[in-house]
Amino acid sequence: MTLKSGSRGSIPPFIVMEVMNAAADRERMGDAVYHMEVGQPGTGAPRGVIEAAHRALDDQLLGYTVALGIPQLREAISKHYTDFYGISVPMERIAVTTGSSGAFLLGFLSAFDPGDRVGLAAPGYPCYRHILAALGIEAVSLEVGPEERFQPTPEALEAAKEAGGPLDGVIVASPSNPTGTMLGRTHLDRLIRYCRAEGIRFVSDEIYHGISYGAPAVSAAELDPDCLVINSFSKYFSMTGWRLGWMVVPENLIRPVESLAQNLFISPPTLSQHAAVAAFDCREELEANLVRYATNRDMLLEELPKAGFTELAPSDGAFYIYADIRHMTNDAQDFCRRILAETGVAVTPGNDFDAERGHGTMRFSFSRSEAEVRAAAEALKAWKR
Amino acid sequence: MTLKSGSRGSIPPFIVMEVMNAAADRERMGDAVYHMEVGQPGTGAPRGVIEAAHRALDDQLLGYTVALGIPQLREAISKHYTDFYGISVPMERIAVTTGSSGAFLLGFLSAFDPGDRVGLAAPGYPCYRHILAALGIEAVSLEVGPEERFQPTPEALEAAKEAGGPLDGVIVASPSNPTGTMLGRTHLDRLIRYCRAEGIRFVSDEIYHGISYGAPAVSAAELDPDCLVINSFSKYFSMTGWRLGWMVVPENLIRPVESLAQNLFISPPTLSQHAAVAAFDCREELEANLVRYATNRDMLLEELPKAGFTELAPSDGAFYIYADIRHMTNDAQDFCRRILAETGVAVTPGNDFDAERGHGTMRFSFSRSEAEVRAAAEALKAWKR
Repeated sequence: MTLKSGSRGSIPPFIVMEVMNAAADRERMGDAVYHMEVGQPGTGAPRGVIEAAHRALDDQLLGYTVALGIPQLREAISKHYTDFYGISVPMERIAVTTGSSGAFLLGFLSAFDPGDRVGLAAPGYPCYRHILAALGIEAVSLEVGPEERFQPTPEALEAAKEAGGPLDGVIVASPSNPTGTMLGRTHLDRLIRYCRAEGIRFVSDEIYHGISYGAPAVSAAELDPDCLVINSFSKYFSMTGWRLGWMVVPENLIRPVESLAQNLFISPPTLSQHAAVAAFDCREELEANLVRYATNRDMLLEELPKAGFTELAPSDGAFYIYADIRHMTNDAQDFCRRILAETGVAVTPGNDFDAERGHGTMRFSFSRSEAEVRAAAEALKAWKR
Repeated sequence: MTLKSGSRGSIPPFIVMEVMNAAADRERMGDAVYHMEVGQPGTGAPRGVIEAAHRALDDQLLGYTVALGIPQLREAISKHYTDFYGISVPMERIAVTTGSSGAFLLGFLSAFDPGDRVGLAAPGYPCYRHILAALGIEAVSLEVGPEERFQPTPEALEAAKEAGGPLDGVIVASPSNPTGTMLGRTHLDRLIRYCRAEGIRFVSDEIYHGISYGAPAVSAAELDPDCLVINSFSKYFSMTGWRLGWMVVPENLIRPVESLAQNLFISPPTLSQHAAVAAFDCREELEANLVRYATNRDMLLEELPKAGFTELAPSDGAFYIYADIRHMTNDAQDFCRRILAETGVAVTPGNDFDAERGHGTMRFSFSRSEAEVRAAAEALKAWKR
């Protein structure tokens, strides 16, 4: 008899992977590639984290930890809420997770049942909808554009309810990947109040907090203790490969999240946990990364229009600029393929982020060195001429 | 409006956690505790792994890797199948995962759909059924006992089919946690042939491979390329907190597993991946761990009966001895509580492993030092007198 396979593995491949493979091929041929497709810092972990990791390697047995993470790290994260946002979040509400990926899995499982409907912005991070689908939760696209700063609004949620029934949750990322746009305090507060009134669980993806260019990001934890707040050491703390994130958990979900974490993960990577405690003492180095991002951003906002990219989303935070390119092409995938082949600049077509409208958009990442981003801008301008 | 919570977080807490908390309380009071409740090696990673980790910390940026793991590690694991089992498993079929926990999630999602029925032995590892439940897959208990060496048989699978309909999969662990029993080649082959004929996907949990006291363990990968084979660096390689495992993936599930891994995990911990490449060159140190396990096992098989534990499952592998204690108590949980309070020996009641019959069983782990396990045996014998 034939062995069956599950349908949940039928996820469309990331189109960015095609870009990355083509870029790797090009590099193997000895041609220059300017990486603007990557969604991670160009730097490694700060020095203090590396040193703490060396010490932990020598001093610790590195067995399992308790499922919600070592107390020192939960305390350090709790203190981070005081230092960064001026609020008190007790360490009991902090769950250390295996990347923000682990937090999404645990958060969605603890908050939602199969068949539940969860709204999310399009364009948005594609893994949200794929994780939701794997868990039998329906992802409801909220099509938003520049008028809404590419962020969900009560009106968009209301429209989704009218079209398909009440929502059980919503996922909001501010700063957003891919657009870099943010929700200010007033808008975020209005959105959370609407959700609370409607019984919609608010999931706040705050993994780009700390990387912003105007007002600092507002945490949903400042506004409502029943939000699920998800954060990570990957972006601001520049520790992607360490696979460490955290979640601020509403009181009544702490026990479910703990049980799920014990069963699904046992514990987050132990060495990463010990090392991450030191991350909060590395502000100086981390601020230097921010200066680099800001310099790259300012330069690109000046130079990209000269290369024809005139329709740019407000890059409030993260290290992304999202461009509407409909005046240049209606096939972002082919367009990005050509840019790579003809200039060496690797960029991400919008299709991954917005199945309906992404063929008319693309994302530039400016997380790498100033020299590389500058060279990419020059190559794009020359291509335009 | 009230915010809803998901029902999937309602997992009964591990009873062993109660033991661990009581043991920790005792240690805080300054009283000795002999840890026989733990399911992990008492040792850290081998020296060569630690050294490779130091090097990677200094030399590597430690960003994300490709979802299925760095090629060097996939190659080293592929070679391990030649060295250990004498078979050829191409590196393309190896998926490096975030612990065996990550492999279970990805494996179950790629192979099964919601509503599918998957058989597993009772007693067995409790997380299997909780992960299956989180994914909407029905766990079907196969009650097995000493007659079957606590392992599933074609007859048990046939009975489950007659009772509740066809099975879509089965999970088999050899050596088993909690019983330590193994399936020899003949029995494993018979079971896999039955499953193939019935269209039952065979999932082989091989995380205790390498730790056995008679014939070496047989891998399902030797017998059928459509089995999902799950392994880990946690046990034989003594790297629990590094959160690294792997899966041998059937050809037609490679692409689904890769997509799921990209979305659910991005990549396994990068430092652990680089360090684990060195694990395969640390045989000498790892074999010394095995000698310790074997010494502890032989001693316990001699001493435990003197303490009244006369009904012991054959401890073929892993570092567990599973005892039938019905002649001593019908309440394993209370019994283990008393043992800890009166002797300082922390042991695990069977309830976690077998909801129906576990109240009459308990598990001894002998993964810690010879001195500690010896002291525990003496304390148990004195308690009996």
